[in-house]
Amino acid sequence: MESVPRPARETSRVEMFSDSVFAIAMTLLGFGLGHPSHGPGPLSTRLIDAWPSYLAFFTSFVTIGIVWINHHRLFTHILRISHGLLLWNGLLLMFVTLIPFTSGLVADSIGRDDARTAAGLYSAGFVLTTMSFNLLWRHATRHRRLLDRHVTPAMVHRINLQYGFGPLFYLATFAVAVAGGALASMLLNCVLAVFFALPAFTLADAVLETPGDDVSG
Amino acid sequence: MESVPRPARETSRVEMFSDSVFAIAMTLLGFGLGHPSHGPGPLSTRLIDAWPSYLAFFTSFVTIGIVWINHHRLFTHILRISHGLLLWNGLLLMFVTLIPFTSGLVADSIGRDDARTAAGLYSAGFVLTTMSFNLLWRHATRHRRLLDRHVTPAMVHRINLQYGFGPLFYLATFAVAVAGGALASMLLNCVLAVFFALPAFTLADAVLETPGDDVSG
Amino acid sequence: MESVPRPARETSRVEMFSDSVFAIAMTLLGFGLGHPSHGPGPLSTRLIDAWPSYLAFFTSFVTIGIVWINHHRLFTHILRISHGLLLWNGLLLMFVTLIPFTSGLVADSIGRDDARTAAGLYSAGFVLTTMSFNLLWRHATRHRRLLDRHVTPAMVHRINLQYGFGPLFYLATFAVAVAGGALASMLLNCVLAVFFALPAFTLADAVLETPGDDVSG
Amino acid sequence: MESVPRPARETSRVEMFSDSVFAIAMTLLGFGLGHPSHGPGPLSTRLIDAWPSYLAFFTSFVTIGIVWINHHRLFTHILRISHGLLLWNGLLLMFVTLIPFTSGLVADSIGRDDARTAAGLYSAGFVLTTMSFNLLWRHATRHRRLLDRHVTPAMVHRINLQYGFGPLFYLATFAVAVAGGALASMLLNCVLAVFFALPAFTLADAVLETPGDDVSG
Repeated sequence: MESVPRPARETSRVEMFSDSVFAIAMTLLGFGLGHPSHGPGPLSTRLIDAWPSYLAFFTSFVTIGIVWINHHRLFTHILRISHGLLLWNGLLLMFVTLIPFTSGLVADSIGRDDARTAAGLYSAGFVLTTMSFNLLWRHATRHRRLLDRHVTPAMVHRINLQYGFGPLFYLATFAVAVAGGALASMLLNCVLAVFFALPAFTLADAVLETPGDDVSG
Repeated sequence: MESVPRPARETSRVEMFSDSVFAIAMTLLGFGLGHPSHGPGPLSTRLIDAWPSYLAFFTSFVTIGIVWINHHRLFTHILRISHGLLLWNGLLLMFVTLIPFTSGLVADSIGRDDARTAAGLYSAGFVLTTMSFNLLWRHATRHRRLLDRHVTPAMVHRINLQYGFGPLFYLATFAVAVAGGALASMLLNCVLAVFFALPAFTLADAVLETPGDDVSG
Repeated sequence: MESVPRPARETSRVEMFSDSVFAIAMTLLGFGLGHPSHGPGPLSTRLIDAWPSYLAFFTSFVTIGIVWINHHRLFTHILRISHGLLLWNGLLLMFVTLIPFTSGLVADSIGRDDARTAAGLYSAGFVLTTMSFNLLWRHATRHRRLLDRHVTPAMVHRINLQYGFGPLFYLATFAVAVAGGALASMLLNCVLAVFFALPAFTLADAVLETPGDDVSG
Repeated sequence: MESVPRPARETSRVEMFSDSVFAIAMTLLGFGLGHPSHGPGPLSTRLIDAWPSYLAFFTSFVTIGIVWINHHRLFTHILRISHGLLLWNGLLLMFVTLIPFTSGLVADSIGRDDARTAAGLYSAGFVLTTMSFNLLWRHATRHRRLLDRHVTPAMVHRINLQYGFGPLFYLATFAVAVAGGALASMLLNCVLAVFFALPAFTLADAVLETPGDDVSG
């Protein structure tokens, strides 16, 4: 046991637990698409009519994937856990487990009267997810001893700045949904997901840039 | 293999297995909220009417999260496994996997005739969960060789005392439910979950207090 | 990487993958109990009427738990993987993922005309599960280099003998079901699960008995 | 931490995350078989009538299993991750999480008017899964520093060739489905799954062949 310090082991259990939640939520998104094989009309028509389901599935899957990648990266900087870190992480996971629920709501509502409510809730879920992600990171930086020694104040500042935009973007798509643009809000959420997934917009420079690393691919 | 002793490896597999069950149960809570998008009336009304679902979801999520954190902490003291430990751990996991079931029951029943039965079962599930948690720990302390060397009798005594209150609290909320106060019982379960999650009421002092640790955050 | 040989790493990924399947199947058993909150009559009556569900849940949960414990133990003897080992392990996992399905069938059928078919399938699933478990172990012993050096021929012989009884027991409960005793078959499956879980009937002597180990608890 | 270099730790988290998705998707296939216990006629007849479900379950389970084994093997060659690798891996996982969905579609449609659409989609899903698998590997080989030192250009060439056939085979079963042979397409998908699982057709020679290894079993 001497060669594996306890704090490192602790972090790895939190990471693995979080990964399980991310993986289950992502897989349930696919499972939640259900069986549209029963109903009137040919299957092809019914599948095409269910296009909002695929838009919601894709957006939710990519968004949780990005949360996973960034969670992954944060924990290359975090070396120790505290009770507070577990709480913020738990809050993040709680909002992630709600994504399949709000995703199902919006998939069923696009093009109907309820679209505004559902799209608003969907974006609100992302506001809360990204906010709790920021609070998790802020907690780690406020308790300096949780961080790895390689983390400089400049690095912390840059990460703060970059993650800080997340909730603002989703507040914008929330506003679009509430203003009546449910489909526009959904498309913006989808564009944001793809946008955040692109290497150029990731925290690659701040987080992964170590000598010899090739993160552009 | 010389540097990783077999007992340590054994413990880690039990911890990871348990974590998977906790993570799946927590994620299924969100998935189990279902699709209230179909039905009469606007979605917003139907979502607001489903408030017992969110209360049950939040309470169950936080409660399983606390079981996870404490399970996590117990296993910083437990170094080896025995067949008996696997059985008590299995019993704990069985009651945890039933939480999404009783949670669904109570979510559907608040405000109806069946509320008393459902809330009683929900609390009974927590009584059994916390009791099996205590039995797991008692087993480990009765078989001294399962514990890490850093565990002192005073530490064991303090942990016994602190975990011992869990079943008593849930017996109280069970009594409230059976006496007819289903909603009061639910609210008490929710308050208990938040209460147990707060750093001041955790086993931080007994369990995590190692030199240089900052667990107050 | 020098200190962690590749074969050890390979085995650990198979073990973790299998554990995930076991954990998910066990948690889905609880989730699959469904929401009997809707229907005529009071909830308490409907819950009591659903007793075959709890019998099937308990039996399936404990049985998968035992498969997990024994899988766990086999892999303390298996050091390397081969393609064949992955196939037998995959077959075992396939039958395990079918347990929630057959468990649901039997829970819905006890006391109805279809009880014989459902109970027969339930036991047949256990015959196939325990048979593939034996085939996995036989494969490992036929390819001696997969085993750890501490495994003696006498140990292999004893394990063969002990695991060999599993399929025979379940063939018996299958016969009872087919002969018309669906409930008797279910109760026997339940008794077998509890029986196999008791320390005295586990492979403790052959598998865990290392100097200083206390496996009786 | 000195003995476990960060890149190795990074790879292992990606592998474990992917494994979780594979394990959940495989277990949900069993859970998704549903409860055919309700309905007219005896259970045995209804179960026999549901044979396309079992064909789809078996084919999907074995296919995801093969993707898992090969993913497993690829990562014995991949030592480091890049943002691009995470994206390709995420795309692969997205198509894997859709397999329970398309599998359910085809299970419900065989023998009906919609069989052609469903079987076409099922094969299309496999085309996309195997294509993203190839793109993941191509990305790793294009960024040479991601690979382990033991990987020679000849080995890369051989693996390219072997995995390159996957999408072509599934394009063929897609064509058969679209041409009207839904059942033939399903049977071909099943044969391909078994065929790919057999040791002789795996990448055993290129991937696992290390001195003293016995991969033929």
